[in-house]
This record gives sequence, C-alpha cells and structure tokens, in this order.
Amino acid sequence: MHTGFIGLGAMGAPMARNLHRAGTLKAVWNRNAAKARELAHELGCVAAESPAALAREVDVILICVSADADVLEMIEALVPGLRRGQVVLDFSTVSADTARRAAARLAPLGVEFMDTPVSGGVEGARNATLAIMAGGDAATFATVQPVLQSLGRTLTHFGPHGSGQAAKATNQIMVAGVARAVAEAMAFAQSQALPLDQVIATLGGGAAASWFLTNRAPFMQRRSFPPGFRVRLHSKDLLICRAMAAARGVTLPVVEASLADYDRLIEGGWGDEDISAIFRLKAQLFEP
Amino acid sequence: MHTGFIGLGAMGAPMARNLHRAGTLKAVWNRNAAKARELAHELGCVAAESPAALAREVDVILICVSADADVLEMIEALVPGLRRGQVVLDFSTVSADTARRAAARLAPLGVEFMDTPVSGGVEGARNATLAIMAGGDAATFATVQPVLQSLGRTLTHFGPHGSGQAAKATNQIMVAGVARAVAEAMAFAQSQALPLDQVIATLGGGAAASWFLTNRAPFMQRRSFPPGFRVRLHSKDLLICRAMAAARGVTLPVVEASLADYDRLIEGGWGDEDISAIFRLKAQLFEP
Repeated sequence: MHTGFIGLGAMGAPMARNLHRAGTLKAVWNRNAAKARELAHELGCVAAESPAALAREVDVILICVSADADVLEMIEALVPGLRRGQVVLDFSTVSADTARRAAARLAPLGVEFMDTPVSGGVEGARNATLAIMAGGDAATFATVQPVLQSLGRTLTHFGPHGSGQAAKATNQIMVAGVARAVAEAMAFAQSQALPLDQVIATLGGGAAASWFLTNRAPFMQRRSFPPGFRVRLHSKDLLICRAMAAARGVTLPVVEASLADYDRLIEGGWGDEDISAIFRLKAQLFEP
Repeated sequence: MHTGFIGLGAMGAPMARNLHRAGTLKAVWNRNAAKARELAHELGCVAAESPAALAREVDVILICVSADADVLEMIEALVPGLRRGQVVLDFSTVSADTARRAAARLAPLGVEFMDTPVSGGVEGARNATLAIMAGGDAATFATVQPVLQSLGRTLTHFGPHGSGQAAKATNQIMVAGVARAVAEAMAFAQSQALPLDQVIATLGGGAAASWFLTNRAPFMQRRSFPPGFRVRLHSKDLLICRAMAAARGVTLPVVEASLADYDRLIEGGWGDEDISAIFRLKAQLFEP
C-alpha cells in the first residue's frame, strides 16, 4: 500500500518520516515546496508537483493542514488525480461538518474519506504514539489499519464521517476545563502558602487526579510554560468546538471561559506558551 | 494511646470503628446521644456524658462534625476536661481560619490542635484508605501517626495550623472544575451521537485523562448519579473556598461557576445526587 503525505508541518513531517520507516511513503507535497523537496531528498521519495500528481502515485493520501478551508482546498486540488478505490485520511483538527463535506465530495468518485484527527502532540507524532480518532466507513478503517498503526498507538473508530472530529472536539473541551480547574486550584494553593509539590503529589492520588495535574502543574510551580500544547492552537481548536455547539444553538460555558482566558494570554504575548500558562491569569487574581 | 471520637456521622462512625479495630478507641460522644450509646454498646467502649467527660478519658480527641461553628463549639465544650499534653484532631472540612482559631484557643492549655480534613469519602472512611491533609505542629503530626494510620493511607503534613484545610479547599476547587469540564465535554459528545464508552476509554488514555472521567463519566453515560460525593456537601465546601478567597479580595471563576450550577441542581431536587449530576445541566443545554 503506497502512501503520500500532504502538509509537512510540525506534526506532518514526523508522521511522514514514520510512514517512510514503515516502507509505504512514496510521495510528499507541501504548500512551501522547498520543505517538500528537502524531505523528499532526505527520505528518497517523490516531491510531487501538485496534490493531484501525488494522488496519481499512491493508494492512500494523508493530509495534515491547519484549518477547515485548507482541508476543503486540498480535497479540490486532489480531485483531478484521484481514482476509484483510493482513500484520503485527514489528520487536521477541523469541524465535523468539514469532514462530512469532504466525504460527500469524494464519494461520487469512489474515493473513501476518513477524518482521523490525533492527540499526543509533536512527541506523539515523532514516536508514533498518537491517539487517532477516526470517523468514516468501518471497512475503510480496517483497510488502512497498517497505515494508522505506523503513526499511532490508540486507534479508535468512533462512527460515521465527522465523528473523529467530534471526539477530538470533546477531548479539547475536556482539556480546556481541566486546565482551568488545575490552574485556579494551584493559584489558590500558592496564595495559601502551601508546598506545591506536596499538593501535586497528594491531590494526584485522589478524586482531583488528572493527567494535567501530574504533568502540567509542575510547570505552574516553576512558573515556566514551555510548549507542550500552545495556547494559540488550543484557542483555534476551541473556536471549532464553539462553532459545532453553535450549530445546535448552544453556548458552552467551559469553552467560552477558556477562550476568554486564551484571548487575554495571547494579548499578553503568551500565545506560544503551553496552555498551563493560564496559571498566570489565576495567580494574578491573588496579586495586590 | 487512648482515643475518643466526637461526631458519629456518615464519616465519623466508620472512622471510630477503625480506631476500635486498632485497639485505641476508649470513648465516643455524639450530639444525638442514642447514636453514641448504640455504637458504644456495639464496640464495648464508653458513651461519654459530654465532650469534656470524653476528654478526661483519653489522650487524643478526634472531631468530625459539619460546619465551622460546630468545630468551635466542640472545642469550647472540650475545654473543661482537657489537660496538658493532649492532642485534638479535627477531621471536619472547615475554613483554615477556624483551624487557626481552634489552635489558638487550645495552645494556652498546653493542648495541641491539628486540622486533619480528609478526602476519599465514605468508602475511604470505612476501608481506612482516606487521604488525610494535616496542618499544625510537625512533632505532633509524628506523635499521632499511629492514630492517623488506622484511619487513612496517604498522610501528608502541609505546614502550620490551617494548611490541612487549605489543601482540602484546593482539592475541592480542582474537583469542581474537573467535574464541570468532564460533564460539559460528555454532553457535547452525546449531542454528537458519539459512543460514550469509547469516548471515556480513548480520552482517558491521553491529556484529557482524570479520575473523574474514568470513575464518574460512566454515571453520566447511564444518567444515574448515586452518591459518591453529594452536590449539597460539595456546595458547602465550595462556600468555604469562596470565603477563603474573599478574605484575600479574590473571586474565583471556577468556584463561582460550580456554586451556580450546584444551586440549580439543589433547586431541581438533585442536591443529594453525586456531583456528576452536573451532566444534567450540561445535557439540558442541548435539549430543544
């Protein structure tokens, strides 16, 4: 099964390398062509002239770009090169609606689309330990297992087109709220002059335990917030969540509160810090 | 080391039983005397006539009551029976300020006070697996180790009087925010028709992981919220957190949002459900 990768950014490039390691990568394409030529040279694969040219070379096309419009634009650009039986996997974090539109655009061509957003960050992309949340046809999910297994560790099929994105959005909402809870509680603990390492250890053993407490509260304690997961990117993802809820006439309080906090962080020049930087805002509450 | 227990409620009664198992329990007292007589009969210990009478019988006095005023009232009631060298341990969840006042009242009598609030709920009390968060004198903490070990598993000394309560308040703030995050995300997932068991399993393996997701999101999936930790009690604890923050001129957004949610749950007749019942409010957002 030959694969081609479109979008060689911070996530895409290491994912393409893992496909190369698995022996399936045949072609790459990137908006910035120099980056594609460089990686193609390094891996000894084809730097395709266009998305359509890449499509002609491979069986499975993998996309990892930034925004909803980019995904739909790539789908259009692929169309002239597609043939019946191919599969397009989109690893971008976009709305479930975009996934459904992409699937609907490709279905008449006999090409299967799956939304396959990931969590696990750059380390996950590099170490092939991503969690992959898939939406689309179950038989297609089975077909592309070898491809997904070379990229991630937890592979879950959530249902029809869009449900991978819905699961990813659920994840981003949860992380947003947990991060705010941990930050507010840690700022309170600091204001009470508690030893923060003991707070992290003790609370991490009970009902307040979370991945974020164990792995990110230490950033708060050191007041240093290396990414991690950037405020700017989480904010972008939460805008997707907001739009998906708004499509049902709903405003989500946790999402709105986090977006407001992230706006303040970005304005303050902290948009490229890890989201644990919300601690800055919470600690400020206690400063005279 | 002889112990006496004051306050034989849902937490206090099983804790007293664990002291009995450890062979230290000599006397009990309860506002409702019948309850004390019953337990004393069962365990073969003294049902003291008064808190002061209980104090005369024992070396370490353990208190587990409901509110700040109850703790200070018990301290006053103990005074006539106290003698130099005794220790009073207060397991109630109250404000750090109350702990400091209790300590200051007893210090001139040569009696050491420690605030020792717990987490782990009724199961923790029964199985002696409570997390105990202690504030007070370090030497006293060492002295009462055998007593604490017969009640809990994680024993942490956080610092001077009041810091046990401050750690407990930190815990309650964190749990409040995590619970809201999990509930909002799960309601969103449900609105997207995702298979909730797969959401719980997949998200529980990544950055969104929390004790609450693993242990309480299944309640949301079943839409059944057996306590657990009652809305009413968490609301009471968050009022303590609010007051402790207000004493520093601070309003905590996560605390306020949770208190507002809990008020609505209590009004709706769900105050005795587990706090995962916030899912009711979040799911309502998506109902037409």
